Amino acid sequence: MKLHCPFPAASEEHILLAHGGGGRLTQQLIDRVFRPAFANPLQQAEHDGAILPPASAHLAFTTDSYVVHPLVFPGGNIGDLAINGTVNDLAMCGARPLYLSAGFILEEGLLVKTLQVVVSAMSAAARRAGVAVVTGDTKVVERGKADGIFINTAGVGIVEAPSPVSPAAIASGDAVILSGDIGAHGVAILSVREGLEFEGEIASDTAPLWQEVRSLLDAGIELHCLRDLTRGGLATSLNEIAVARGAAIRIREVAIPVRESVQGACEILGLDPLYVANEGRFVAFVPERDVTRALAVLPRGVRIGTVHPDPAGLVLLESRIGATRMLDTLTGEQLPRIC
Amino acid sequence: MKLHCPFPAASEEHILLAHGGGGRLTQQLIDRVFRPAFANPLQQAEHDGAILPPASAHLAFTTDSYVVHPLVFPGGNIGDLAINGTVNDLAMCGARPLYLSAGFILEEGLLVKTLQVVVSAMSAAARRAGVAVVTGDTKVVERGKADGIFINTAGVGIVEAPSPVSPAAIASGDAVILSGDIGAHGVAILSVREGLEFEGEIASDTAPLWQEVRSLLDAGIELHCLRDLTRGGLATSLNEIAVARGAAIRIREVAIPVRESVQGACEILGLDPLYVANEGRFVAFVPERDVTRALAVLPRGVRIGTVHPDPAGLVLLESRIGATRMLDTLTGEQLPRIC
Repeated sequence: MKLHCPFPAASEEHILLAHGGGGRLTQQLIDRVFRPAFANPLQQAEHDGAILPPASAHLAFTTDSYVVHPLVFPGGNIGDLAINGTVNDLAMCGARPLYLSAGFILEEGLLVKTLQVVVSAMSAAARRAGVAVVTGDTKVVERGKADGIFINTAGVGIVEAPSPVSPAAIASGDAVILSGDIGAHGVAILSVREGLEFEGEIASDTAPLWQEVRSLLDAGIELHCLRDLTRGGLATSLNEIAVARGAAIRIREVAIPVRESVQGACEILGLDPLYVANEGRFVAFVPERDVTRALAVLPRGVRIGTVHPDPAGLVLLESRIGATRMLDTLTGEQLPRIC
Repeated sequence: MKLHCPFPAASEEHILLAHGGGGRLTQQLIDRVFRPAFANPLQQAEHDGAILPPASAHLAFTTDSYVVHPLVFPGGNIGDLAINGTVNDLAMCGARPLYLSAGFILEEGLLVKTLQVVVSAMSAAARRAGVAVVTGDTKVVERGKADGIFINTAGVGIVEAPSPVSPAAIASGDAVILSGDIGAHGVAILSVREGLEFEGEIASDTAPLWQEVRSLLDAGIELHCLRDLTRGGLATSLNEIAVARGAAIRIREVAIPVRESVQGACEILGLDPLYVANEGRFVAFVPERDVTRALAVLPRGVRIGTVHPDPAGLVLLESRIGATRMLDTLTGEQLPRIC
């Protein structure tokens, strides 16, 4: 097969296996799609990796793969998600996100236009979050061996929190602060997938969280632990933390903000918003004395609960009618391919 | 669906969508498969990322996704490849590989046993290369939406080369040294794929390259440029470098070692070994005065050519019969999913 004209008609170009072969077409794809979107001084096209400046503080290093279906959804696409998700994992370490890698696995036959939409969203999200995509990789697999686009991003950041941010730092009596209303991302994905329309489109909450973390640090808040509420939602994240710390977390249902449209959609879809994934919300564990200042910094922040010594490893929910029940971790798969 | 006993019979356990859901089964998979294989002090299970010590030197940062088919082949599997490939991209920056991330995309229905074989190979390869897998992620997609296992690894290393290792550092007159015989990896993959058996099994050359680079640095060799010869093989790598540097690279075919079994297999398969992928071979560009010492350090190293100012951007091959021809970059896809 001769490939003299790999991009014949802009609207209908497709990804070919040869775009992942490491030869001329790979180079053309890099030059045409990736390099313009991610241009930055550290990106060394002729190199196998990026060279980063020395770091006098601790570094945070993290990775996530993104397989969300559908690729595009209200409020974003897999590209925003792949940048924000890794930016947020760094932020949750108390680290300023700086450098990202991007690894693409493309399915043969994908429209180049679709890839461009995704890469353009990544470029905008990276700019918004203040990070540079400095190194990358592209593979192509045969039609039917992937699902459009899978993206992996890894990230490197500089730790700015003055003391370790981790479940181990949580103390009994710490307040649990939630940064905003929950459930929008999962509902946005599922509504597209199920072909449902809800009153007032529900958009994903995908967003970078470092600025909020930085504001908390600037305000002198003692951040004991941070966690973004992705797969498994608020309930699962709190359970992981309760187990890791060996403490009890008591939260009040009435304090947890869920938008009416999201609540309504969850009822129709048979979902519990406490288990639905978010891509722009986190919980912060802070000492009681810092609660007021923390809430002053987080515009949509609410205090939802408190850490207790017992019963260790459990999350307890005080319901709207005053009853207390155990809030278990997610079992099974509520929403596959949510991120 | 209740999942009280997710691993009923060791030999026939399968990956479920819920293993990627972020809930209990994800945790069980981490605890049972990943954590034992990658145990190291920096791996913080209860965290979204790993915290690395400060670095007084420049850092190298790189990523690659691995989609090789078949997953297991003579000489290795996708797990070895995913560790060695990223280790080698760091080594090619003149950096000591230190920390890796591992992102898994699994297809629903995959045998857990297969994943264990791959993860076990990763663990052994990481130990051999002296790197720690410090952070990771697992996603599961529906049956038919991936192909068994895709792995992304990103890596962070510390630059130990005293001056930048990059095509820009290449000077006219530099010698081109090849670290060993070429073509084994691509032929090993293709022979399995095509169900061919060659006399004397041809095993992949997958191997970590940092020790060889470190030996060159220890010997005081001025390393101008390093490149591992993966997708597109020796010919494509040299073309990329010739273009990036704006120089001509002249090589002699007779100097390029290709094992007889590999040469024979290439003839049967219709492949040119100069374009076949390697996973444990590299070229080094060094000043003429360092050639003898470089070859003393590399046990299988050979000098294959020299850098000239003209014709800039081209690779010229002097054939066995003394004719000179242009050696082009790979066009199209000689071997899809080779890594």
